[in-house]
Amino acid sequence: MQHISFDYTRKARIGLPEAVFCQGKDPSIVQKLLSEFSKKNDASILFTRLEEKIFRSFPDETQEGVNYHPLSRTAFSRPLPNHASQKKVAILSAGSADASVVWEAARTLEYLGIQHEIFEDCGVAGLWRILDKLEEIQKCHIIIAIAGLDAALVSVLGGLVDKPIFAVPTSVGYGMAKNGESALSSMLVSCAQGVAVMNIDNGYGAACAAARVLNMIENA
Amino acid sequence: MQHISFDYTRKARIGLPEAVFCQGKDPSIVQKLLSEFSKKNDASILFTRLEEKIFRSFPDETQEGVNYHPLSRTAFSRPLPNHASQKKVAILSAGSADASVVWEAARTLEYLGIQHEIFEDCGVAGLWRILDKLEEIQKCHIIIAIAGLDAALVSVLGGLVDKPIFAVPTSVGYGMAKNGESALSSMLVSCAQGVAVMNIDNGYGAACAAARVLNMIENA
Amino acid sequence: MQHISFDYTRKARIGLPEAVFCQGKDPSIVQKLLSEFSKKNDASILFTRLEEKIFRSFPDETQEGVNYHPLSRTAFSRPLPNHASQKKVAILSAGSADASVVWEAARTLEYLGIQHEIFEDCGVAGLWRILDKLEEIQKCHIIIAIAGLDAALVSVLGGLVDKPIFAVPTSVGYGMAKNGESALSSMLVSCAQGVAVMNIDNGYGAACAAARVLNMIENA
Amino acid sequence: MQHISFDYTRKARIGLPEAVFCQGKDPSIVQKLLSEFSKKNDASILFTRLEEKIFRSFPDETQEGVNYHPLSRTAFSRPLPNHASQKKVAILSAGSADASVVWEAARTLEYLGIQHEIFEDCGVAGLWRILDKLEEIQKCHIIIAIAGLDAALVSVLGGLVDKPIFAVPTSVGYGMAKNGESALSSMLVSCAQGVAVMNIDNGYGAACAAARVLNMIENA
Amino acid sequence: MQHISFDYTRKARIGLPEAVFCQGKDPSIVQKLLSEFSKKNDASILFTRLEEKIFRSFPDETQEGVNYHPLSRTAFSRPLPNHASQKKVAILSAGSADASVVWEAARTLEYLGIQHEIFEDCGVAGLWRILDKLEEIQKCHIIIAIAGLDAALVSVLGGLVDKPIFAVPTSVGYGMAKNGESALSSMLVSCAQGVAVMNIDNGYGAACAAARVLNMIENA
Amino acid sequence: MQHISFDYTRKARIGLPEAVFCQGKDPSIVQKLLSEFSKKNDASILFTRLEEKIFRSFPDETQEGVNYHPLSRTAFSRPLPNHASQKKVAILSAGSADASVVWEAARTLEYLGIQHEIFEDCGVAGLWRILDKLEEIQKCHIIIAIAGLDAALVSVLGGLVDKPIFAVPTSVGYGMAKNGESALSSMLVSCAQGVAVMNIDNGYGAACAAARVLNMIENA
Amino acid sequence: MQHISFDYTRKARIGLPEAVFCQGKDPSIVQKLLSEFSKKNDASILFTRLEEKIFRSFPDETQEGVNYHPLSRTAFSRPLPNHASQKKVAILSAGSADASVVWEAARTLEYLGIQHEIFEDCGVAGLWRILDKLEEIQKCHIIIAIAGLDAALVSVLGGLVDKPIFAVPTSVGYGMAKNGESALSSMLVSCAQGVAVMNIDNGYGAACAAARVLNMIENA
Amino acid sequence: MQHISFDYTRKARIGLPEAVFCQGKDPSIVQKLLSEFSKKNDASILFTRLEEKIFRSFPDETQEGVNYHPLSRTAFSRPLPNHASQKKVAILSAGSADASVVWEAARTLEYLGIQHEIFEDCGVAGLWRILDKLEEIQKCHIIIAIAGLDAALVSVLGGLVDKPIFAVPTSVGYGMAKNGESALSSMLVSCAQGVAVMNIDNGYGAACAAARVLNMIENA
Repeated sequence: MQHISFDYTRKARIGLPEAVFCQGKDPSIVQKLLSEFSKKNDASILFTRLEEKIFRSFPDETQEGVNYHPLSRTAFSRPLPNHASQKKVAILSAGSADASVVWEAARTLEYLGIQHEIFEDCGVAGLWRILDKLEEIQKCHIIIAIAGLDAALVSVLGGLVDKPIFAVPTSVGYGMAKNGESALSSMLVSCAQGVAVMNIDNGYGAACAAARVLNMIENA
Repeated sequence: MQHISFDYTRKARIGLPEAVFCQGKDPSIVQKLLSEFSKKNDASILFTRLEEKIFRSFPDETQEGVNYHPLSRTAFSRPLPNHASQKKVAILSAGSADASVVWEAARTLEYLGIQHEIFEDCGVAGLWRILDKLEEIQKCHIIIAIAGLDAALVSVLGGLVDKPIFAVPTSVGYGMAKNGESALSSMLVSCAQGVAVMNIDNGYGAACAAARVLNMIENA
Repeated sequence: MQHISFDYTRKARIGLPEAVFCQGKDPSIVQKLLSEFSKKNDASILFTRLEEKIFRSFPDETQEGVNYHPLSRTAFSRPLPNHASQKKVAILSAGSADASVVWEAARTLEYLGIQHEIFEDCGVAGLWRILDKLEEIQKCHIIIAIAGLDAALVSVLGGLVDKPIFAVPTSVGYGMAKNGESALSSMLVSCAQGVAVMNIDNGYGAACAAARVLNMIENA
Repeated sequence: MQHISFDYTRKARIGLPEAVFCQGKDPSIVQKLLSEFSKKNDASILFTRLEEKIFRSFPDETQEGVNYHPLSRTAFSRPLPNHASQKKVAILSAGSADASVVWEAARTLEYLGIQHEIFEDCGVAGLWRILDKLEEIQKCHIIIAIAGLDAALVSVLGGLVDKPIFAVPTSVGYGMAKNGESALSSMLVSCAQGVAVMNIDNGYGAACAAARVLNMIENA
Repeated sequence: MQHISFDYTRKARIGLPEAVFCQGKDPSIVQKLLSEFSKKNDASILFTRLEEKIFRSFPDETQEGVNYHPLSRTAFSRPLPNHASQKKVAILSAGSADASVVWEAARTLEYLGIQHEIFEDCGVAGLWRILDKLEEIQKCHIIIAIAGLDAALVSVLGGLVDKPIFAVPTSVGYGMAKNGESALSSMLVSCAQGVAVMNIDNGYGAACAAARVLNMIENA
Repeated sequence: MQHISFDYTRKARIGLPEAVFCQGKDPSIVQKLLSEFSKKNDASILFTRLEEKIFRSFPDETQEGVNYHPLSRTAFSRPLPNHASQKKVAILSAGSADASVVWEAARTLEYLGIQHEIFEDCGVAGLWRILDKLEEIQKCHIIIAIAGLDAALVSVLGGLVDKPIFAVPTSVGYGMAKNGESALSSMLVSCAQGVAVMNIDNGYGAACAAARVLNMIENA
Repeated sequence: MQHISFDYTRKARIGLPEAVFCQGKDPSIVQKLLSEFSKKNDASILFTRLEEKIFRSFPDETQEGVNYHPLSRTAFSRPLPNHASQKKVAILSAGSADASVVWEAARTLEYLGIQHEIFEDCGVAGLWRILDKLEEIQKCHIIIAIAGLDAALVSVLGGLVDKPIFAVPTSVGYGMAKNGESALSSMLVSCAQGVAVMNIDNGYGAACAAARVLNMIENA
Repeated sequence: MQHISFDYTRKARIGLPEAVFCQGKDPSIVQKLLSEFSKKNDASILFTRLEEKIFRSFPDETQEGVNYHPLSRTAFSRPLPNHASQKKVAILSAGSADASVVWEAARTLEYLGIQHEIFEDCGVAGLWRILDKLEEIQKCHIIIAIAGLDAALVSVLGGLVDKPIFAVPTSVGYGMAKNGESALSSMLVSCAQGVAVMNIDNGYGAACAAARVLNMIENA
């Protein structure tokens, strides 16, 4: 039997509760945790990378009351209360193939009670896409920019907006896209200054990074 | 003759002025820019990666009035006015070999008029180092965490503080340290959530990322 | 027909019997070896990387009397006699996704007749986890430390305990975790001195390394 | 003694004369070839990657009559006659650190008798740079686009102009710029369709690719 | 729901209409786009990387009127009108394992209304293959050269013909073929000058690069 | 339809007939070639990397008369006549997981009419294995040495025997075995001098290299 | 000024005092630490990677009383007292090019007061070298095995001796030796079980790993 | 003092005497060996990778009587007697930048007493080069083929000649030539069958591989 030491004090320490990363875990353990946490009143936990096939294989009483979202592969029972901050996070993506990462970020923000708006399909091969939406994007306070391939969207964006940018490379594409490594490198060496980068496909992490900023503002 | 299109409107667009990255540029061009900008009253420019040997080779009238700092390889004539934000940035490093990156970040913040405090030599091989300073670090509002090798400092820190963290891998070490690639990977896959990462040795970028956050707070 | 030259004298030479690594071998050969060795009185052999699906496909008489453990994918008929050493090996892991490697190490030690204790889910994102267990861990004589991703657990541990540490990187995670290569590099360049490293996911090898130490003590 | 089989019929076969790549060749051989070819009336050869220090070490009679250009490290005695094509090649670069590659391309075109115009410092961190020059660029017939780091310029350009684009990644930058490999990958997986890519820093090759197009037009 | 911002003005801007890259997209979205575009009179769209299994799973009314080609995994309803250019593109391949890339290029040219001719199985292990076809190949105006493994075909070809060459590495082979990276590197460092290179397996991109050249000739 | 230019004159040119590498080819093409060549009297062709599942899916009349060997994934109708050389090739392997490569080499030699002897499971973890067989091995004239992982067998062998050695790395193992790249590197930098290396898992190539030597002896 | 937090309690915690890794540190800091520690009676510190040129540049009073060893690039004033353990560490190397790593290990053991014996030039290209010394090696209790290139020595050794083995890859060689990465991979995937591995060229770390074992024996 | 165990019996065992690889060895050791061996009557040793600057720094009495060749960086006092074999080795290279590797191979053959002929500058960008020399090359018995960049020469050659081919990649070129790794990969996956490959720049190894073949013929 696998032993789990749940980190109940994490929210108090760092402002973000522990989440359950399901990939690579035995489904029986995920099911046990899902059942346990959905019954508690005082604790709700986010499950990430939970494949639909696995979730649907659970008994009805486990699935019941769980808010599951297949594209993002996330689940939770109850979101945290609305964040005290009145600030909004923009989630941009370059193309529709980035959708699962977009929605992992969006669902994490939803779970954390943080306002957000999604701007999909802004890739710079058609520069008008990002230029048309610029005014709306600038009304947000933090930007999560999601792109694969050349990730050129991030550099263009970084030269046009004055907000914090958390960039997430995605593993779309083939050949020299190298499962997202090209996009990652492009973001890290972006000619636009002050862009911070997350692991490949890590929409969850970008949402947490945004939450750290908003938490700091509230606590300052 | 090389032609330079200086981006004078960048500060207005993104809140951060263009800087001159000197590495790989012909010294004569750097000298010309340094002379030009140090004479202007309304514009001061940050020069990064300017090697001491090159700076010292310039005529006295070029060096005069320039605030040059060898360890960080940075130069500027006048810092920007004090940032409206009353917030402070903590700059942590794992070991004394990370010093040039620490100081590139510190000097960039100084140039941008942003308060900051340096906490060097916090590597977790002696866990007491970071634990002893934790209270002071928590008084800051944003953390720049600089580490090479295993970059374990960043994961420990990320599990102990609730502030935004911009992590900078450094190219110290040998063998499998791979000029900073190991530290970079460790930071990107850190078990601590919401840590955002910059390019290897990019202290300048981390300072800019912090500035984007503070600018957003002021402008919100 | 594949020809196998079994190394019967290995235990006499190096203190460790040959084991059968099943991955990539034709199931019919594995079955033949399993049948052969389970019948011998004077020889018991450890089978590693034996997938449950393959083991279960064998006829009942082959499965009978075999101690098979699915999570670790190991099998043996009879463990070796209790090791003369009264010493105990601690097996630590960072997260529950490392379980199959933890158990490959544990099962190998069980087969070798060596005392051991498992400490799972000690990842440093919640530093209290490792600190809480430190006293118990220090009562052991050798430590096998298993971690994926940033492997920060190993560096923290190496700065807190004075025991030999054999570190095993695991292939958990995605993106820049690179199937365990990031954890491997982190361990090799760990800021904690004197940490020795095994191949990715090689729980078996770490148990053997511990056995070499205990054998040396007994024989000295 | 090194034996050289000069490919005198190459121009007849592929429309481009053989050139001498000097890097890695013994200076005495380069000097011999330079002397030999500058004296011939019917043949002029382009020398690439000829370091200034080496060229200046040659005796005066070797240097005499040679058109040497230090930044591009190229030399030739006489350019080929003006190309029959009335078409013009645009050479764009992202930043001033790309200058040596820009000039290797420009000098090769000059040697081949092909019209060209240079547009430096067009990096998209200041999007106005490329937009301001777009009309002029569109008047050219072929584009050589030179960029390092994220190479985002190429993707933006590819979505704005309808001309053939030969993209050259440069080895500027540090860390994850990986001596131009990041820029190369970005160009190869560019979201802009139909962009063709050359080896890192290969300004010479891009000029030859443009010449193949112009030769085809003339010969068709 | 995924949001798509179709780039209707792309053809006007760059001479090439947007295409739909189906890999990684949800089949329901592909089906929706396929239905939508096949009904329009004024717009026909190319679908690439559309697996046969997915296409065949669509309802009959979606499949109807669609020109689908399994080997190339491409689909379109109506090709664009015949290209004004009277020029022809040669598509060469080294071996029969390169066929899916050959046909992706051919089908894209067919969709774009551009004349082309296929020369398969020209690998230089039998040098007569390419020499026998040389005269026919030279009658074409642009060459798309497709090869995996050592990609030696491209270097030999580049030394024999005077036409523009767009080289496409393929992911055939095993071991050090590295899914096409060896072929890619060989093409980029080819000893034949002026060869331009596309991403691994990117037959579509090579056809677009050829189209950019032909469009330029028509518009010049 | 895929077009194949069979290289009928290859045997005359290089002493080795063309073979059909089936992986990545459409099964219908493989079937057609298999049928065609098994009927000819004057030509027999070797098929490599032909998966059993595909071969068994062919109609009986195609399978009939074909000598198929599943472990090596090879097929041919008739071997070439016995090689004039009276010399024998030794095929050594380090472990039983290397068997498919061993047999690809053995079957190729059988097809080429060349004498050979197999020595399996000679890995140096039990040094007696190779030492016991040394006398027999030395009676052969050429050695094909097949090993994965550390490939230490090759270096030990190279220091003990005076015969030509063609070393083949195999893709066995996990983690840092890197699908055979570690074994490949070890062989290339072997401390034993004069060891020549083939691509990973390329048993076919090693047999051809041996055949080149034997052909040269006969023709000299 | 760089701030150093020396970890004075490390010896008490983990049995090994902190050492000063000089590479990448400013010489003035190294000199200051060297002066400081050589004067203390109760503390002696090991300096590693201290280049001779730098050490010799220090004033005489700094050099005085310091035991400096150029090949190993190590310095200390006084070794620790003889280790309570009566056990001996064997240091083996494959070739004479590994000498600086051999001596870094030897000097660290000398500093730690641990008995040791050096066996150089044991590479398996001449198998008799290691076989001749085997009896002497087996009299030691722990083995540090140092090798570059194919590192075959480690696998042979691991199959012949029953002692703990700490293997150190070295960066000797060229081409595919890849600065020690090939040797590292070979060691990690060694066919000999229970071999533990250190970072490339890390003789210091191997000595510390051996010390952890000996400390454990004394404290048990 | 470094200890050297010279392998005097190697010639008897494997037909090739031990050689001294000087790179990375202390010059004083090289000098000592050079003096020692040049005085012996019954033993002559080959020194490889001995830089001219180091050789010239030795005292006259050490240099005297030594046959030193700067381009190949090799030295020996007396060659071995003429090889009993009447066979000749062809050494081909693609370009003049490969010369140091060509000459390392040639000098090793000279030292071993083996006949050889050099064919430089045969690169396939001018296919006539290799075709013109084909008849002469075919008169040799073994081919050493040396090439960098795309290494296309090797594939063309392998399809034209029936002799054993030992291919040596060279580290010439820049960018994606990757210090010879591209050439190495191309050779390993060459479409020409039975080509065996040596480490990058390893002319010495190729000569030894050829010698193994010739020795076998003599001894058979």
